Amino acid sequence: MAVYTEVSDDDLNAFAAEYDIGEVVSCKGIAEGIENTNYLLGTESASYILTLYEKRVKEQDLPFFLALMEHLAASGIPCPIPVKGRDGVALRRLSGRPAAIITFLKGMWPRRVTPAHCAGLGRAMARMHMAGADFALARPNDLSVQSWRPLLEASAPRADEVRGGLVGELVHELDELEARWPSGLPGGVIHADLFPDNVFFRGETLTGLIDFYFACTDFFAYDVAVCLNAWCFEPDHSFNITKARRLLSAYRAERDFSLEELQALPLLARGSAMRFLLTRLYDWLNTPPDAFVTRKDPLEYLAKLRFHQAVAGPGDYGLD
Amino acid sequence: MAVYTEVSDDDLNAFAAEYDIGEVVSCKGIAEGIENTNYLLGTESASYILTLYEKRVKEQDLPFFLALMEHLAASGIPCPIPVKGRDGVALRRLSGRPAAIITFLKGMWPRRVTPAHCAGLGRAMARMHMAGADFALARPNDLSVQSWRPLLEASAPRADEVRGGLVGELVHELDELEARWPSGLPGGVIHADLFPDNVFFRGETLTGLIDFYFACTDFFAYDVAVCLNAWCFEPDHSFNITKARRLLSAYRAERDFSLEELQALPLLARGSAMRFLLTRLYDWLNTPPDAFVTRKDPLEYLAKLRFHQAVAGPGDYGLD
Repeated sequence: MAVYTEVSDDDLNAFAAEYDIGEVVSCKGIAEGIENTNYLLGTESASYILTLYEKRVKEQDLPFFLALMEHLAASGIPCPIPVKGRDGVALRRLSGRPAAIITFLKGMWPRRVTPAHCAGLGRAMARMHMAGADFALARPNDLSVQSWRPLLEASAPRADEVRGGLVGELVHELDELEARWPSGLPGGVIHADLFPDNVFFRGETLTGLIDFYFACTDFFAYDVAVCLNAWCFEPDHSFNITKARRLLSAYRAERDFSLEELQALPLLARGSAMRFLLTRLYDWLNTPPDAFVTRKDPLEYLAKLRFHQAVAGPGDYGLD
Repeated sequence: MAVYTEVSDDDLNAFAAEYDIGEVVSCKGIAEGIENTNYLLGTESASYILTLYEKRVKEQDLPFFLALMEHLAASGIPCPIPVKGRDGVALRRLSGRPAAIITFLKGMWPRRVTPAHCAGLGRAMARMHMAGADFALARPNDLSVQSWRPLLEASAPRADEVRGGLVGELVHELDELEARWPSGLPGGVIHADLFPDNVFFRGETLTGLIDFYFACTDFFAYDVAVCLNAWCFEPDHSFNITKARRLLSAYRAERDFSLEELQALPLLARGSAMRFLLTRLYDWLNTPPDAFVTRKDPLEYLAKLRFHQAVAGPGDYGLD
């Protein structure tokens, strides 16, 4: 799935020679992640991830992502650390692509999410939000509310192939999201893509947050809303209030929510559902059905959107 | 590319608990190999390959493959060793598929083949052929000459889409291969798929032979012929006699060729070219062009076939 750029032995050896990581003894393409090319790089002493950044990641954003990981790791957040070469540089080029080596984190992402996983996630996310407070760089969220109408318009001509009436329903929702989207909520650096495959555990202990390539500057509660959608629904699309309660209460034990954040949560959850619905819809319509990649179902997020539309208030997420 | 079967945490932990390999601390799908699902499995102490055997591998052949690796490794051939569980069993089931854990070999396959790599290959292949002499099991080569006509017939109705006149040329060649295919040459266990991505090196030192899932009982010289095709042609399809000479002379320093083998080599090389041409042709015609897998060009093997048709004798491969 994920090897887009093949690296020749000579190129790899020349690249690795820029670092103090020892001789490379293995290098295997990893079939995870759909944005970049990732290799698991083994040296005599340790394992690393070698990432070649592909076209969906903007090259000018890479210094933000790498500096953020370094900042968070230095603040005690378990995340990969960009490895610097002897010249002090972490970002260089390999096989024609921007590339970096980052440290390897032990742990596995949970294929079956439990309430305990959600608690670990909430705690780590709150700590990450606080650790980002003194991070100097900023990056606007280019997949927030202002991007959704152009995204919808790009899919609209064929969206009703996926489900009759879909465009009308989304236009109506988008009108409301645009009119009511909050401003002035507490914010800073958010991950913006904290799905289970970006969070590692050993047993129920969280060991790592990875894949910061959607990280940006936005409301903290929007990051929480992304996680409500990604972690607290069951495969049949039913909402699991126990998981949400564990996630939110573990979060607020580290960083409490303001009243405005709590009140905004249902709308932010609708917005987050809209964001993933729209990017999945676009990919669905623009990926051949017989391609050897798993297309993610946009309608999963329609079900989530409808759930949040019916929410009476933050109490429906298990909050007291 | 290569993760067909997802393994849940619970299933993986239950599976790993059957072994004395320690706690699993990471498990990443590998984007190499197109037949099976491979994970790189990390424990506290070591790395392993976890393979789930997918539908293209016949389940009844698995004991042959696993026993062969164990036999060869015990004879000093650098190849993966199937790890046995506490019950003494190496082959069990995981997520509905037959599955095994094998040892991890250091090294990388050469993206750019040098004559020194060819020498290492020749030496290791000869030693592997000799080491297989006292292996008790046998498996017929189900992709040898008897399989080629049905394979050609399966592709024939659309083969001329790939190149005009292709079917006629292949039918004529196949008539000759069937009429002249040798018998009685020295044989035993062969690998049958020793392409560069199945041979690991550190620098120019060979460190491993992997992927024994086409291994079978056939002529040793047929294995050599496969390698002449897979290692001794340049990207422009020209034959590199230096690489062939290094491969063949390193082989015969370990196990010399009989006169009959030498004389049969051009025909065996044509047969090997036919075998890969036909399977690639079939896959080409039956894989959607927009699928996210790299289809291998069948016409590369047409160029190789034509080269061997024009060979005057084994001397054209650099042999004295």
